[in-house]
Amino acid sequence: MSSHPVPDVVVDPSVPPAVLEVVGIAAYTELAEFGLLAARSVDAPDLATRQALADGAERALERQHDLVELVVPGGGVAGAALVMGPFEHALVEFDTRTATEDWAEGLLKGVVGHGVAQDLCRTLAAGATGGPARRLREVLDRPAPGPVGAAGADAEALAVLVRLGAADDVLASRLALWGRRVVGESLNLVTSLLDDHPALTDLSEPAARALDADGVVGRDAARHWLVARLTAEHTRRMDRLRLAA
Amino acid sequence: MSSHPVPDVVVDPSVPPAVLEVVGIAAYTELAEFGLLAARSVDAPDLATRQALADGAERALERQHDLVELVVPGGGVAGAALVMGPFEHALVEFDTRTATEDWAEGLLKGVVGHGVAQDLCRTLAAGATGGPARRLREVLDRPAPGPVGAAGADAEALAVLVRLGAADDVLASRLALWGRRVVGESLNLVTSLLDDHPALTDLSEPAARALDADGVVGRDAARHWLVARLTAEHTRRMDRLRLAA
Repeated sequence: MSSHPVPDVVVDPSVPPAVLEVVGIAAYTELAEFGLLAARSVDAPDLATRQALADGAERALERQHDLVELVVPGGGVAGAALVMGPFEHALVEFDTRTATEDWAEGLLKGVVGHGVAQDLCRTLAAGATGGPARRLREVLDRPAPGPVGAAGADAEALAVLVRLGAADDVLASRLALWGRRVVGESLNLVTSLLDDHPALTDLSEPAARALDADGVVGRDAARHWLVARLTAEHTRRMDRLRLAA
Repeated sequence: MSSHPVPDVVVDPSVPPAVLEVVGIAAYTELAEFGLLAARSVDAPDLATRQALADGAERALERQHDLVELVVPGGGVAGAALVMGPFEHALVEFDTRTATEDWAEGLLKGVVGHGVAQDLCRTLAAGATGGPARRLREVLDRPAPGPVGAAGADAEALAVLVRLGAADDVLASRLALWGRRVVGESLNLVTSLLDDHPALTDLSEPAARALDADGVVGRDAARHWLVARLTAEHTRRMDRLRLAA
């Protein structure tokens, strides 16, 4: 088929390459979360859940627009495609290895994968300096708008999963196991992203310093610190879901 | 599973029942269009199309929020569920009879079904009087925001379908045939909605008067006029798509 015609757009030249890459990953994973939440909205068990997950998908896309706007002001669809382009196929293997037909597992996949991606982007952004990095941190840290308040696009998905797990011990055990598998794949993906994008790895050590991590010296130590940090955040997330991580 | 907990919300008592029903159908079909566009975004052939269809889905949901807000101000998710509730299962048979695994057919299904629904709601709203009906017409007639301008949520889907059809005669013939099937099912759905909701049928005759239709006297004639009008609008839509209707 004919590809989508894309007008010329350019990235703001004041944005450092590493910051542009963090924006690309953040924008691409918000678009992925939009798709996951929308898909779980379509086959939601009741109308209110369907609406709430659609609203969550909308908030993910709004954040994605804000991210793209930071680096390609006014770029619209073409700007988004430009920023996300380097990561277009980054999620294919993750998606294949975490494919599921189960509604609750699909929802948890989004919460876990999107959560790891957000933590990764926030952490790496802490290691960058200058105006564009500061503005990026403002968007990443901004509470999402909408009725669920500060908890963002995933708030409703989290609430649904907590209700489901509380009502069904067998499901809760299965979801806990599934969460472990999804986070494993998410961390594998982070590792291969860092391998493929050295500019991102370069942010890890200054990020560790900016976030007051003790004794993190050198790139390798910083990478280990980063993965350990994402793992710890995941454990906290699963605790909030009342699913053992 | 446990159902979504829904707080108490109430419909604005100044909204006539028939207007409330038009809002319900309009809101529900915008949510359905959100789901169809989002699903075609997820499996879009390239990143720009994926983004553009996601943006279209977002615009459909924004319009849905505006519609719900008209009749349950501040009602959020619970308000949306309340307004759409009477139509929750209205699309099940339509969806079953127009199920498709084909990407372009899925996109055209949304454009045709959503188009008929919008035409239905605009036409019926023309038959209602009073402040709530006037405000409803304002929302239904409002150009959707976003980069594609006045053409609304479906603009990108329309553009994609025009490109696909222009590049492939065999596909264009198949899509023309598919459009005929989808509009047939859409009009069957309209007929059964009018059967099930007499207040909607009651709007047809004043709508015909308001829209200067000649010689439309009585409920039956008004129903025939309404279906003929929707069919004519569909023909114009397929012409814009350069697919023979």
